[in-house]
Amino acid sequence: MPPLRAIVFDAYGTLFDVHSVIALCEQLWPGKGAALSQLWRSKQLEYTWQRSLMRRYEDFARVTEAALRYACAALGLPVDEERRRSLMGAYLKLAIFPEVRDVLAALRESKLKLAILSNGSPAMLRPLVANAGLGSQIRTIISVDARKIYKPAPAVYRLAVERLGAPKTAIGFVSSNCWDACGAKSFGFRTFWINRTGAPVDELGAMPDHVIGSLGELPALIRRPLS
Amino acid sequence: MPPLRAIVFDAYGTLFDVHSVIALCEQLWPGKGAALSQLWRSKQLEYTWQRSLMRRYEDFARVTEAALRYACAALGLPVDEERRRSLMGAYLKLAIFPEVRDVLAALRESKLKLAILSNGSPAMLRPLVANAGLGSQIRTIISVDARKIYKPAPAVYRLAVERLGAPKTAIGFVSSNCWDACGAKSFGFRTFWINRTGAPVDELGAMPDHVIGSLGELPALIRRPLS
Repeated sequence: MPPLRAIVFDAYGTLFDVHSVIALCEQLWPGKGAALSQLWRSKQLEYTWQRSLMRRYEDFARVTEAALRYACAALGLPVDEERRRSLMGAYLKLAIFPEVRDVLAALRESKLKLAILSNGSPAMLRPLVANAGLGSQIRTIISVDARKIYKPAPAVYRLAVERLGAPKTAIGFVSSNCWDACGAKSFGFRTFWINRTGAPVDELGAMPDHVIGSLGELPALIRRPLS
Repeated sequence: MPPLRAIVFDAYGTLFDVHSVIALCEQLWPGKGAALSQLWRSKQLEYTWQRSLMRRYEDFARVTEAALRYACAALGLPVDEERRRSLMGAYLKLAIFPEVRDVLAALRESKLKLAILSNGSPAMLRPLVANAGLGSQIRTIISVDARKIYKPAPAVYRLAVERLGAPKTAIGFVSSNCWDACGAKSFGFRTFWINRTGAPVDELGAMPDHVIGSLGELPALIRRPLS
């Protein structure tokens, strides 16, 4: 195994907490915040898979907004233009998980290139990274939008190989979405699944190489020679 | 619009009630039947989409069994070989919805060819249809297994065109899974979404032509000249 030269992070759910929108949802519809955030997220992912298979790609901002409309309708929550705009705006200012800043600093000390590979469209990812103040730590932002298909299609992971100019076995891929880690492993990356909730591993024919409970465990794991 | 020559039904959730396994789940793990059935089904569908995108097709029996293992592990339900086998066996004997038999009889009187187009593997579909006693009414059983990809990929819907020898505009496609009806519409079928639960329509860039609350409304709708 060659040593790792780059670490590629998934964005939503891995560095950024998609459920940090709960606060605003809760403010708009008291008592419904968690349910709305949950359904919004699960529908958003379903639409990415279904549209990819249907060959009807639309960018992640449109998919996210469609999922929001669906979730509000399903839960009987009236959403006008103003609420819709403020919820979509919240998606550009998602909170990072508390350990993110230290982890990125530690990895950069190890001379690793850091990148994001995300379903997000460039227009969503740029403000997201800037608002969290991560722009100086992660300079390579890769969006699936260049291939008009969503994860876990191999064409998406291949984008990172092309952009980073490193062989796939020298790229570590980090995601808290197990199916994303499995997709990256199936493609050929060395993969780290951040299993924050103690969920079972998904059975997709390709298991993540490493399973850790938090991003915080990543720097020590990567410094150790990987076998 | 040419008149319809064939009606193609989705199987799981449309003719057959996937949640009829709740009774057995409940018997094995009292109080957990509904939660297990729900998670089993949603994971089963996710795996079909994810494996299709990863190009790691496995047949529906294996996907269904993997989803069962995941759901049991996630809910903390110990599943031994005997329980696993009885639950997988239940999937071959799913109950049909109460209106199915009358609806099929009425459609056959209208001289329409009836078919099933399903994610299920042939080895799952044959006993399923036979156990429900539908074999004489639906003679054409089409499985995605011939294309090694799952719905809503267009290649799957194309199978029905090939097997039925009818143009896509002369084929009516019926599903209670909205994303499946959208996928079929995107391909070019005339589509009927059976919306049993009053859910919002999925926003996938292709709306079903007709939305009805039960299969029972189908014969009258089809006898009327469709505009």
